Amino acid sequence: MRYGAIEAGGTKFVCAVGDEHGNIEERASFPTTKPEETLQLVFDFFHGKQIEALGVGAFGPVDVKEDSPNYGTIGNTPKLQWKDYPLLSELKSRLGVPVRLDTDVNAAALGEYMHGAAKHADSCLYITVGTGIGAGAIVNGETLQGFSHPEMGHLLVRRNTNDAYPGKCPYHKDCLEGLAAGPAIEARWGEKAQKLYHQEAVWQMEAYYLAQAIMSYTLVLSPEKIVMGGGVMKKQGLHEMIQQELETLLQRYVPLPENYLVPPGLEDNAGIVGALMLAKTAK
Amino acid sequence: MRYGAIEAGGTKFVCAVGDEHGNIEERASFPTTKPEETLQLVFDFFHGKQIEALGVGAFGPVDVKEDSPNYGTIGNTPKLQWKDYPLLSELKSRLGVPVRLDTDVNAAALGEYMHGAAKHADSCLYITVGTGIGAGAIVNGETLQGFSHPEMGHLLVRRNTNDAYPGKCPYHKDCLEGLAAGPAIEARWGEKAQKLYHQEAVWQMEAYYLAQAIMSYTLVLSPEKIVMGGGVMKKQGLHEMIQQELETLLQRYVPLPENYLVPPGLEDNAGIVGALMLAKTAK
Repeated sequence: MRYGAIEAGGTKFVCAVGDEHGNIEERASFPTTKPEETLQLVFDFFHGKQIEALGVGAFGPVDVKEDSPNYGTIGNTPKLQWKDYPLLSELKSRLGVPVRLDTDVNAAALGEYMHGAAKHADSCLYITVGTGIGAGAIVNGETLQGFSHPEMGHLLVRRNTNDAYPGKCPYHKDCLEGLAAGPAIEARWGEKAQKLYHQEAVWQMEAYYLAQAIMSYTLVLSPEKIVMGGGVMKKQGLHEMIQQELETLLQRYVPLPENYLVPPGLEDNAGIVGALMLAKTAK
Repeated sequence: MRYGAIEAGGTKFVCAVGDEHGNIEERASFPTTKPEETLQLVFDFFHGKQIEALGVGAFGPVDVKEDSPNYGTIGNTPKLQWKDYPLLSELKSRLGVPVRLDTDVNAAALGEYMHGAAKHADSCLYITVGTGIGAGAIVNGETLQGFSHPEMGHLLVRRNTNDAYPGKCPYHKDCLEGLAAGPAIEARWGEKAQKLYHQEAVWQMEAYYLAQAIMSYTLVLSPEKIVMGGGVMKKQGLHEMIQQELETLLQRYVPLPENYLVPPGLEDNAGIVGALMLAKTAK
């Protein structure tokens, strides 16, 4: 079977064609501009490719309830041209195939669960730490949904006592994303994260904040594996620093599984492979 | 069909016989003493009752993985006589019927989901605030499990600036349970919670701590309804105070469903009705 996949991000759209095993045969990417412009490039890419179905991992907020009349419609995004854009129904009517859509992070979680670092686990959580912080999860073999998609990047954390930076989240100021995403690191320390690799204090603080979030995910969801990706996580040794902070915070209250915190097995392909997996169950 | 149910708590065991609709026909309760002594009373209660299957909501930690060789065995509890006690297999072999076991709070969540305050919701969370704080959840129609059962009562929260009380949790000191369970209220204010109903400051602080936990559950799980029960939640108006704090903390980042925080629909029967529902799918 040939499936289509789209990783619909806020800065670029990645399109791919692949098979049911997650193998990507062909791909292309385009900058995210106006909806009609971007979608035209998407239609051109899939033209003549004869896909059976399409899976989409989309930036949010987006309506992900399959029984909702607004399923697949973008919500109240700061990207105003995309606000209320019916992404799924446009794709479905123009491509004429079944489409399944989920959040970008849920798609990435599914990719890692089916073919990546969590492929032998019964449940997993995927978190990306980059321009923002987002996470998705797989519970009972399905992506986790509730009344809306989770927004795990905005957890409240305790402030490091040495941290005078007020936080960057427009809603909560010093929530996890406000204190620990790439832009917060840059604003606090005056340089981009990848220029700060030699500064121990930067990463101690980062590990402290991320470990608090991992502790919450652990206590609430108890996932068998937590896959940590995104630009900020490319710092060597950060996974281990977080693991250490996590153990200090948890105080052995919950014995953690072996190799609990791991980098993505699919590197930067988790999202697009996950979108391909969504296509398999599209209706 | 006639089913049996046990709410196996740390201080008492409640046993009941009922039907598949959650109707309780007969019940009894016994203090939790030594395992053999308590179980003898359980066997006496069920003797001759001709139940088809049994559901159990048990205090923890307990192994809840149905495919584990230790399924239904109590873990590292401070109640030393119960440590490593194979509760499920003892019940199964003596009663000769299929038995399904989950945590007490997951059973209560299931009871409220099937027949209580969350019966029209697709997902829900149940939290009890009493001697301890525990929560269970229903996701995709199933109780939430991962590598272990969730331990949602031990989330880290931000301290209220007026709170000098160090916290009571033997593991984390000032986690949610350490600051907001009944014993913490009593230790901080010098009287039991139900004697402090007229003191506004007690409940403002309590609402602040509980709202932080509700915010985390909301951001991670996005349940359609959150049922809040337990002794501490009997204070009139506390649900509304928590709702208000929650809205302040969330800053409209996530629009909450109507009637999001509710008291149990089954009052103190959520656990035993949930256990009855577990019996229906016992193998």
